[in-house]
Amino acid sequence: MKTLFFEDYELGHCRISTGRTITETDIVMHAGQTGDFYPHHMDAEWCKTQDFKQRIAHGTLIFSVAVGQTAGEINPEAFSYGYDKIRFIKPVFIGDTITSKCSIKEKKDDPKRPDFGQVIELVEAINQNGKTVLVAEHVLLVKKK
Amino acid sequence: MKTLFFEDYELGHCRISTGRTITETDIVMHAGQTGDFYPHHMDAEWCKTQDFKQRIAHGTLIFSVAVGQTAGEINPEAFSYGYDKIRFIKPVFIGDTITSKCSIKEKKDDPKRPDFGQVIELVEAINQNGKTVLVAEHVLLVKKK
Amino acid sequence: MKTLFFEDYELGHCRISTGRTITETDIVMHAGQTGDFYPHHMDAEWCKTQDFKQRIAHGTLIFSVAVGQTAGEINPEAFSYGYDKIRFIKPVFIGDTITSKCSIKEKKDDPKRPDFGQVIELVEAINQNGKTVLVAEHVLLVKKK
Amino acid sequence: MKTLFFEDYELGHCRISTGRTITETDIVMHAGQTGDFYPHHMDAEWCKTQDFKQRIAHGTLIFSVAVGQTAGEINPEAFSYGYDKIRFIKPVFIGDTITSKCSIKEKKDDPKRPDFGQVIELVEAINQNGKTVLVAEHVLLVKKK
Amino acid sequence: MKTLFFEDYELGHCRISTGRTITETDIVMHAGQTGDFYPHHMDAEWCKTQDFKQRIAHGTLIFSVAVGQTAGEINPEAFSYGYDKIRFIKPVFIGDTITSKCSIKEKKDDPKRPDFGQVIELVEAINQNGKTVLVAEHVLLVKKK
Amino acid sequence: MKTLFFEDYELGHCRISTGRTITETDIVMHAGQTGDFYPHHMDAEWCKTQDFKQRIAHGTLIFSVAVGQTAGEINPEAFSYGYDKIRFIKPVFIGDTITSKCSIKEKKDDPKRPDFGQVIELVEAINQNGKTVLVAEHVLLVKKK
Repeated sequence: MKTLFFEDYELGHCRISTGRTITETDIVMHAGQTGDFYPHHMDAEWCKTQDFKQRIAHGTLIFSVAVGQTAGEINPEAFSYGYDKIRFIKPVFIGDTITSKCSIKEKKDDPKRPDFGQVIELVEAINQNGKTVLVAEHVLLVKKK
Repeated sequence: MKTLFFEDYELGHCRISTGRTITETDIVMHAGQTGDFYPHHMDAEWCKTQDFKQRIAHGTLIFSVAVGQTAGEINPEAFSYGYDKIRFIKPVFIGDTITSKCSIKEKKDDPKRPDFGQVIELVEAINQNGKTVLVAEHVLLVKKK
Repeated sequence: MKTLFFEDYELGHCRISTGRTITETDIVMHAGQTGDFYPHHMDAEWCKTQDFKQRIAHGTLIFSVAVGQTAGEINPEAFSYGYDKIRFIKPVFIGDTITSKCSIKEKKDDPKRPDFGQVIELVEAINQNGKTVLVAEHVLLVKKK
Repeated sequence: MKTLFFEDYELGHCRISTGRTITETDIVMHAGQTGDFYPHHMDAEWCKTQDFKQRIAHGTLIFSVAVGQTAGEINPEAFSYGYDKIRFIKPVFIGDTITSKCSIKEKKDDPKRPDFGQVIELVEAINQNGKTVLVAEHVLLVKKK
Repeated sequence: MKTLFFEDYELGHCRISTGRTITETDIVMHAGQTGDFYPHHMDAEWCKTQDFKQRIAHGTLIFSVAVGQTAGEINPEAFSYGYDKIRFIKPVFIGDTITSKCSIKEKKDDPKRPDFGQVIELVEAINQNGKTVLVAEHVLLVKKK
Repeated sequence: MKTLFFEDYELGHCRISTGRTITETDIVMHAGQTGDFYPHHMDAEWCKTQDFKQRIAHGTLIFSVAVGQTAGEINPEAFSYGYDKIRFIKPVFIGDTITSKCSIKEKKDDPKRPDFGQVIELVEAINQNGKTVLVAEHVLLVKKK
């Protein structure tokens, strides 16, 4: 655990995760967790007839993995308020390897809570070819000093 | 499968899922899927010392479950573009039962793709006490007729 | 949910599921769920020495998946009484894609319950080559009007 | 492995498994494996409004577990032909403990295969109160000497 | 269950398990169970840059599988005291098939418990090429007659 | 990643993990992963008749979790050689919360590899009452400067 106040967050600061290969297991388990058994994720034969030719990972799987990868040390003064602008930029296939980047994109006052500021973290999931597959903005509420 | 064009989406149309109880199993499996073993989700003893007193579900778990619950019939003319304004409004505890609502909130032209429109679905996850625990806006790109 | 009485079931009516590829993950998870670690399912080397040359899915896995695939809308007036004539017609290998068909095969009075009738649903699991791999008869008890 | 021919199976011979408590985890995993998220298994709140008052295990879960429990030694001369008369006699709740019995109920010639006989094993799953919750008849094809 | 006293264990007695192929699923599930998402197990791209060229199974996975494979009949007079000299001799890759051997290596008095003896079982996990990948010594405390 | 040579390890240095509650899910998943369905872990009714009165976690589960919890930063100059003196000191029950400690207990030359030293890490898993439930010694081979 590491206490950080709003003032301690540094614009542009960036952390990068280790990589993780997205496996068939991840997709099957995520279908089982969410109940989303769409053929895009589960039916290899049907996928062969589609533009992308093979099964693709659920968007919520890649989002969940990227958020998990960028989880840093616990900061007791910060609260996760939500996410904005989640965009599924490229499909993720079985065997793709995802690395996630989390950088401080913006800091601003919170409109309703004078003791807190909003820290906007840009989360980017990048595949083994250097292509960004998903972006999202994480809104943190952080106590001011 | 059911083909729907942009024009076919009806503002205010709403579908409601069956309920699903969020279990300890869901949290343990989601930790295992994402690598997020924060004590908020995994350490019942530490949680007793916190305001919320008990383990809470991962935000990405509730988001993934709500998205899974509201997955309707496959529409080959629609593409998931992303999500906006995901907000974690209330904690979800082990044993809470989530029902999800998905309503058509807005329809608008897509700025870059004249053949497509944007359909904004409001996803709401609601617990057994009728309290909304999570909201998100799903942005669909849908072919025009 | 959709209420259907015995009289509402139509002989010959048929519903077909989306496809689902049976993965190594499914087999490993099913072994873990049932405790059946027979080499037929778990030992790729031993399987090479057998007629079928590769690991095969558990019969109970394919049965469970087919039943899951054909689960239609909930009918509060129907009760699952059991299954008859489950037959494992062909082995299912890792990577095979199963689609399930459920058709109303027979309707008859229930010998002991005058207010109920028996509806016999024929469940067929079919692989990507159009071959039936499993059949079973589902016996439903359904309230009469 | 233990080779047994048709003639070696003894009518009335019975084996009994160790017990296994059916957990919430088993139900959640089985829903994830089959895609059957019916509220009977997944929605504790809705279940409170039903006669059985609490979540019940999937029939296919109890069948799969009972079959797994009664899996004896591998007999290279026997083939599983299928199951008959699966009956869901009593609901199984979270926390119930299942023990399975497998007894040789019948031996008969196979109508199409003169070199084989049919051995009918009666599978019974019994809960902690001694009540039978599921029965099924396993049809084995066994080589004759 | 089968009661065996210290005197009943026979030096050199050996049992051999059926084989089990270590799958990507096993590694992904073990990462999820332990929280160990090291790139050695999870990042196929990074592994390509290392000497071993591909993902390797967690040591604790192979140890757990080998212990599970060698679990014999329950002996109510024996207690697992611990393990000594666990050695990870060779990496285990996805697709390797492990068979485990358990042999009685040593019997000795227990220094603190005169009514018990120590039985040392040598556990060996062997791959499809006959190479030992893991060894461990299991220390059992067994009641004397 | 953080490069540490043999000389950089400091005797007595200790790191402590966050806590993790051992759940019924962990036990059910570990049984499924290892194939160990002994009634000690799986049969709540039988356990009531035993001294410990309730289901206990597999030793290999607690060992795997403790090793996972103490996994620090990756050191490319260190190799895991094995474990010694794993001792199961107290049973772990469902709901117990484990915290793990890893301290540098000993440093010594490696008898066969002059360029490497052995670093012995003492791993201790401690429950919510401060009782040690498992100890093990991790033998690391670390490159000398």
